[in-house]
Amino acid sequence: MILEERLKKQLDFVLEIDKEKNIFRQTHLSGHGRNENDAEHAWHMAVMAYLLKEYSNEQVDIAKVMLMCLIHDIVEIDAGDTYAYDPVARSTQKEREEKARERIFSLLPDDQKAELTAVFDEFEESATPEARFARAMDNLQPLLLNDSNDGSDWREHDVNTQQVYERQKKTKAGSEKLYEVTDALIKKHKEKGNLK
Amino acid sequence: MILEERLKKQLDFVLEIDKEKNIFRQTHLSGHGRNENDAEHAWHMAVMAYLLKEYSNEQVDIAKVMLMCLIHDIVEIDAGDTYAYDPVARSTQKEREEKARERIFSLLPDDQKAELTAVFDEFEESATPEARFARAMDNLQPLLLNDSNDGSDWREHDVNTQQVYERQKKTKAGSEKLYEVTDALIKKHKEKGNLK
Repeated sequence: MILEERLKKQLDFVLEIDKEKNIFRQTHLSGHGRNENDAEHAWHMAVMAYLLKEYSNEQVDIAKVMLMCLIHDIVEIDAGDTYAYDPVARSTQKEREEKARERIFSLLPDDQKAELTAVFDEFEESATPEARFARAMDNLQPLLLNDSNDGSDWREHDVNTQQVYERQKKTKAGSEKLYEVTDALIKKHKEKGNLK
Repeated sequence: MILEERLKKQLDFVLEIDKEKNIFRQTHLSGHGRNENDAEHAWHMAVMAYLLKEYSNEQVDIAKVMLMCLIHDIVEIDAGDTYAYDPVARSTQKEREEKARERIFSLLPDDQKAELTAVFDEFEESATPEARFARAMDNLQPLLLNDSNDGSDWREHDVNTQQVYERQKKTKAGSEKLYEVTDALIKKHKEKGNLK
């Protein structure tokens, strides 16, 4: 089969990102299930973004938010998952992810490489209403799973309340309303002793 | 935490659909990996839809296509995955999926239940340009994975060329261009003996 170069590049990228299904996170599926992978997490975030868009602090282009949710972890195919509460891994995260971003998005035709790189950067920098709302999803999604599992992910990693509040600032920037949920869940798990 | 009923329903639905990550398909991940689950498949389809939208036969609202890709298998949480080439399972599929659709979407507030049910039905009926393109993704995604694994999913289930062509008619309705890829891949695997 001889494909035009453009379509061939697009299909090569499509096959490459299949690997995201093998990148596992620290979060566990509800029902005390196995670890979640990046593709599942991205899928969940994108559905949430659509259903919860009325709570965004600012009006958003929902197609862009969904795309952002779907692709924000693609760099982890090379860079691996960096746990939110692991300061050592986080110190090298930016460098690892920048190399990965360059390699992986370069599989695409130039225009789509530029477009997806820009969307990825926008998310990373929380630069727009879309990015702020997508980041709120990125924080809320594992929080809901962890809550459903009685805070076991926090207990396993000895996470403290202050660390979670620090991270969840991003939720507030995207959605004051959903931050109320976050805040209530953090307080609940602090009381229960699941957060130090 | 006392949540307004609307938000509570939305979050209940969000948690419920986590179960889709445990519904496994017959398709295997590239690199002769494990079986793929529905959430991963939906994520992959949604990214593909965005990147390949220029090949849709008709102009599409891409946000709607992506949403359709993301939710089209949610009913399988109750109904289970029905293999495309299993006539016995397929004979009861509609009934099982209708019951599931009613139960699962009823977790949402009424307006969102109506909206997602309509999007789900639209996909099922291939009723619109968006549905036709989303269905093309639903067919192309496992074909690409299976091709990358040298047709092992077809070999395992003794699938024949005619069956694949029958199913892939839906790809042509969504994208003549992508159907060319499909057709070339089917021919290749027939020649190799991976398809009877």
